[in-house]
Amino acid sequence: MLSKANIKFIKSLQVKKYRKQEQCFVVEGAKSVMELLASDFEVVKLLATEKFLDEYPVSTKAEVIAVTEKELEGVGEFQTNATALAVARMKPNKMFTASPDEFALVLDDIRDPGNLGTIIRTADWFGIGKIIASPDTADLYNPKVISSTMGSFIRVDVLYTPLEDYLAKSSLQIFGAYLEGKNVHDVTYGKGGLIVIGSESHGISSGLERFITQRITIPRFGKAESLNAAIATAIICDNIRRSTKL
Amino acid sequence: MLSKANIKFIKSLQVKKYRKQEQCFVVEGAKSVMELLASDFEVVKLLATEKFLDEYPVSTKAEVIAVTEKELEGVGEFQTNATALAVARMKPNKMFTASPDEFALVLDDIRDPGNLGTIIRTADWFGIGKIIASPDTADLYNPKVISSTMGSFIRVDVLYTPLEDYLAKSSLQIFGAYLEGKNVHDVTYGKGGLIVIGSESHGISSGLERFITQRITIPRFGKAESLNAAIATAIICDNIRRSTKL
Repeated sequence: MLSKANIKFIKSLQVKKYRKQEQCFVVEGAKSVMELLASDFEVVKLLATEKFLDEYPVSTKAEVIAVTEKELEGVGEFQTNATALAVARMKPNKMFTASPDEFALVLDDIRDPGNLGTIIRTADWFGIGKIIASPDTADLYNPKVISSTMGSFIRVDVLYTPLEDYLAKSSLQIFGAYLEGKNVHDVTYGKGGLIVIGSESHGISSGLERFITQRITIPRFGKAESLNAAIATAIICDNIRRSTKL
Repeated sequence: MLSKANIKFIKSLQVKKYRKQEQCFVVEGAKSVMELLASDFEVVKLLATEKFLDEYPVSTKAEVIAVTEKELEGVGEFQTNATALAVARMKPNKMFTASPDEFALVLDDIRDPGNLGTIIRTADWFGIGKIIASPDTADLYNPKVISSTMGSFIRVDVLYTPLEDYLAKSSLQIFGAYLEGKNVHDVTYGKGGLIVIGSESHGISSGLERFITQRITIPRFGKAESLNAAIATAIICDNIRRSTKL
């Protein structure tokens, strides 16, 4: 049985201000919730149907609340997979640096939550575990971001930090995705580096240009003016993995 | 000044049933509207701010209605680029075949409008002008699809047709995106063919499997279980263009 206080609490986490205040976020859907329970995230509350709890006996320190599908639909943002929902604690925004033998993504104001989620999922597919995001990039803990990562937020670390400072301190190669640059098919990527992806509306900020050591571009054969940011990221990642034959 | 009848008519076009009945759809945003006016689509109504009409003197047979930004926001689905909105006539769903020297996409139940729109935009970038979609694929004229194509719906033809019949009649190579198949980096694509993309939840329908002449797969280096359908499409298109060096 779901209390009014819990309903109010969970719904409040759809809003960034309350997520920040409570340092908690919501994960929906059986698959993502199972992955979350097996991760190092601290789960605070687990709402699940009797069927889910019978099927997956979970061992957790979280408060477990048995709910009906209808109750779940009432608190969740999404209508599908209405068998489980978890409230987990946000991780601290801890500074990290990428090592010279790995690739990391740098996101310059990717404001669309679906795009950010898809980029995290794509990074996870290509074995990229670190993303550095500008403060104006969408919030990792936004329910739409979490949902579109399809569980990959568990395996990819996202750091929010002002990009100029971050890039200024880096000694790695810094690739920047531009409409004009070296063909991604012909670039020598080496063993590691940072890949800067700009926003769809403004591209890479002019303040970051001086840090870019190699402009790269995806060759165009038709007439679209640009590619979606997540699409561009994916094509670049595939070309890196192809070139470095890891 | 926008009449109540026009407001009601335009808003009704957000719903597929009414789009079908009226054979009309809505295009929002200055850039897409300008491209639409220059295309072979028949524009029925053009709602635009005085500023837009001053800036872009348009020659059109459409009914032109000068509106305020506020009026536009009231009828449009999207809040951005609130300077122009057009109502255009849908094109007939006319059968076409791909020629042996071109690549075309075959979409098997891509239900997410954003994914379909992004796939159309990506196809346009890679010079692919034909998409064959299963009847359960999202509706091309859904406002979210049109918006996420960023104008590319004008240059890419989409045919809705039962895929089994369509593929049965084709003599082209038929590539299918699977989780297990030949590495997309190593496939010989030839000069043309059909690329079948399955839905995220169910993959390529079992009924279509017998038509696939080459299973292809995007190599994975991390732990995500799958890629978003639009992302997979984009990576395959880039590999085709790289391989065929058009």
